[in-house]
Amino acid sequence: MGLVVQKYGGSSVADAEGIKRVAKRIVDAKKTGHQVVVVVSAMGDTTDELIDLAGQVSPIPSGREFDMLLTAGERISMALLAMAIKNLGHEAQSFTGSQAGVITDSVHNKARIIDVTPGRIRTALDEGNIAIVAGFQGVSQEKKDITTLGRGGSDTTAVALAAALNAEVCEIYTDVDGVFTADPRVVKKARKIDRISFEDMLELASSGSKVLLHRCVEYARRYNIPIHVRSSFSGLQGTWVSNDSQGDRTVEQAIISGVAHDTSEAKITVVGVPDKPGEAAKIFRAIADNQINIDMVVQNVSAASTGLTDISFTLPKAEGRKAIDALEKTRSTVEFDSLRYDDQIAKISLVGAGMKTNPGVTAGFFEALSDAGVNIELISTSEIRISVVTRADEVDQAVRAVHTAFGLDSESDEAVVYGGTGR
Amino acid sequence: MGLVVQKYGGSSVADAEGIKRVAKRIVDAKKTGHQVVVVVSAMGDTTDELIDLAGQVSPIPSGREFDMLLTAGERISMALLAMAIKNLGHEAQSFTGSQAGVITDSVHNKARIIDVTPGRIRTALDEGNIAIVAGFQGVSQEKKDITTLGRGGSDTTAVALAAALNAEVCEIYTDVDGVFTADPRVVKKARKIDRISFEDMLELASSGSKVLLHRCVEYARRYNIPIHVRSSFSGLQGTWVSNDSQGDRTVEQAIISGVAHDTSEAKITVVGVPDKPGEAAKIFRAIADNQINIDMVVQNVSAASTGLTDISFTLPKAEGRKAIDALEKTRSTVEFDSLRYDDQIAKISLVGAGMKTNPGVTAGFFEALSDAGVNIELISTSEIRISVVTRADEVDQAVRAVHTAFGLDSESDEAVVYGGTGR
Repeated sequence: MGLVVQKYGGSSVADAEGIKRVAKRIVDAKKTGHQVVVVVSAMGDTTDELIDLAGQVSPIPSGREFDMLLTAGERISMALLAMAIKNLGHEAQSFTGSQAGVITDSVHNKARIIDVTPGRIRTALDEGNIAIVAGFQGVSQEKKDITTLGRGGSDTTAVALAAALNAEVCEIYTDVDGVFTADPRVVKKARKIDRISFEDMLELASSGSKVLLHRCVEYARRYNIPIHVRSSFSGLQGTWVSNDSQGDRTVEQAIISGVAHDTSEAKITVVGVPDKPGEAAKIFRAIADNQINIDMVVQNVSAASTGLTDISFTLPKAEGRKAIDALEKTRSTVEFDSLRYDDQIAKISLVGAGMKTNPGVTAGFFEALSDAGVNIELISTSEIRISVVTRADEVDQAVRAVHTAFGLDSESDEAVVYGGTGR
Repeated sequence: MGLVVQKYGGSSVADAEGIKRVAKRIVDAKKTGHQVVVVVSAMGDTTDELIDLAGQVSPIPSGREFDMLLTAGERISMALLAMAIKNLGHEAQSFTGSQAGVITDSVHNKARIIDVTPGRIRTALDEGNIAIVAGFQGVSQEKKDITTLGRGGSDTTAVALAAALNAEVCEIYTDVDGVFTADPRVVKKARKIDRISFEDMLELASSGSKVLLHRCVEYARRYNIPIHVRSSFSGLQGTWVSNDSQGDRTVEQAIISGVAHDTSEAKITVVGVPDKPGEAAKIFRAIADNQINIDMVVQNVSAASTGLTDISFTLPKAEGRKAIDALEKTRSTVEFDSLRYDDQIAKISLVGAGMKTNPGVTAGFFEALSDAGVNIELISTSEIRISVVTRADEVDQAVRAVHTAFGLDSESDEAVVYGGTGR
């Protein structure tokens, strides 16, 4: 039997009862003969409470100290979890990110893992312990300061440890049964996906699916660590994300994984840009220089009469103000008529292998939207994804229409509890 | 200007307002030109809340994991304090016990400091930072596990850092104005002691005075670090504890420091022990083998007719059950008639230099108690202390009588707020 890494989010360890329930599940895995490493997030609302405290003492908390503060959260949950496991008669030891060898860069609040040296974890396992590791945190290589990994940090910790320890699988326990063909809150007939490739999962994650974050899937793909996303509230098989999950991919036929949607973005249109080389570059340089990540970019065909074109792009709503300010400041060097800002948009994406070589997919996608009376504002495609921007208030009917059109609806209405994941 | 170590207890940093108030005080010290190291306890009730959580997941929490859990408390307070200082425009960095180089043995929950290697603190100070250090915690030399120092741990951390950094003074901030000639809750006319020797402070601490614990004073004496005990709620001078605080000690005259009392102990009497060599040794070996600390020990003169004697000793009430059990088990090897357990006792101690060579002190002490109608059950003396055991319900009148008899009463009635210190 090999080594398993399990990750439990904050909602799974929200209180003492949750911790005891998770402890039983961990012990069950140990009893099957596996070596078990557990990555745990802070309990329920702990992080929010700590953030609130920080706000009470300082309007702009220092990054270094903010990380020191937040990491107290996992310290509490991991120690309690180790105690609960020992109370079931099994040996367990908890480790901070630093003790577990999670080495990061020095960017506080959103550090990136640059190495994992899990010597102490290996020793603890070899001595028969279950190792409990604090998610979301590490120690900076340069200054040896405590860092946190930002959103999705605990999932990334789990995958990184699984890679460093050569684990069989990284199990991500959450409060849903797995990854679904669409958001079950919107599409009642959404089906749980049994197996999905890293590539499709990456596209779903960057298209609005929130069960796994892009960053964690990317890490797993690079080191080829299978991820099993499953519920901590049931014993059901969840969704396997791996390299070899679509053996029939060689068959040149579109295999649709699912429909994702995202209402967290806004659209900016730069109106009346001269259609000549370098103008678009200046616009996106201004955006990039302000550390703003953009998503879809579309440039209209320019009107022959004026020689002017419009450039539209989408970006997180939270970055909207900053982007507008950055563009206004470029008016001296970039010619354009006006800026339009629109945060009442939604992005709907269809993800699946073989899409590019099956023109019928794109056509079917647009037909489904058209039949549902949904207007398309922007279009963007990749090898395995096609995304459109629509009005925000049309997103639910759009997602349902596409889900049905591509035969994703389940036979029966499943009752699924769906919530966000922890950090 | 030199280096100052300041320690703030949990009651001083109980909430965001307290943290901001303490931050201002720290910045004031920095502005006078000192390098400042701050040792901080967990906020108010944090530790109790964590202990409660541990109790919910396990009836007997593991020592290692319990320490991991509890140290989250200082992590929160120290990060918030650093943020609050930075918000006042000064640089501050927080450090865990481990980062500060507090090296301990491996005895979880009550580890002892065996070395302090404050390289990171020194660097932070040299770079112009105020260094905030988590009290109460360290890292074990052998296994590199997180440890906690037990009761009075934060004060000991502060003194140990002061010694390692060659500080001018270790300031212990608490919620009272200093060390008093008696407990101000009992004796309204108790006076604040301006200066006291390490030796007298040690005797007061082991006789029931709770402002400073024995352990911390012992550490300060060994490294000759002056301690200044003062209130975090006022700017008043408090009590200086140091080597050179009683220059007039060479004058052979009794200098009374104060009256301490202690109602936390119980008395066990072993009745009818044969008065022959080795019997007492067997009794106290049984007690010691159970890791029970005893305080006063008195053996009566044996009655010539029976050749039997009684041996009485005092010990913490919490250890009473364990001691009785240990003694019952020795019945096969130790002869005695019966055991008597009494937890309705109090210990009253008079502490001061030159006591031994001034017979009038002992006489005056007993006369004062006699005049107050207080009966004496046990007597024990040292070079600079005389202690008696009385009934618990007579303790207040006994302390007041002695305080007055030795001229310790202040001229005016002071209003003093008195409370326990944090950990």
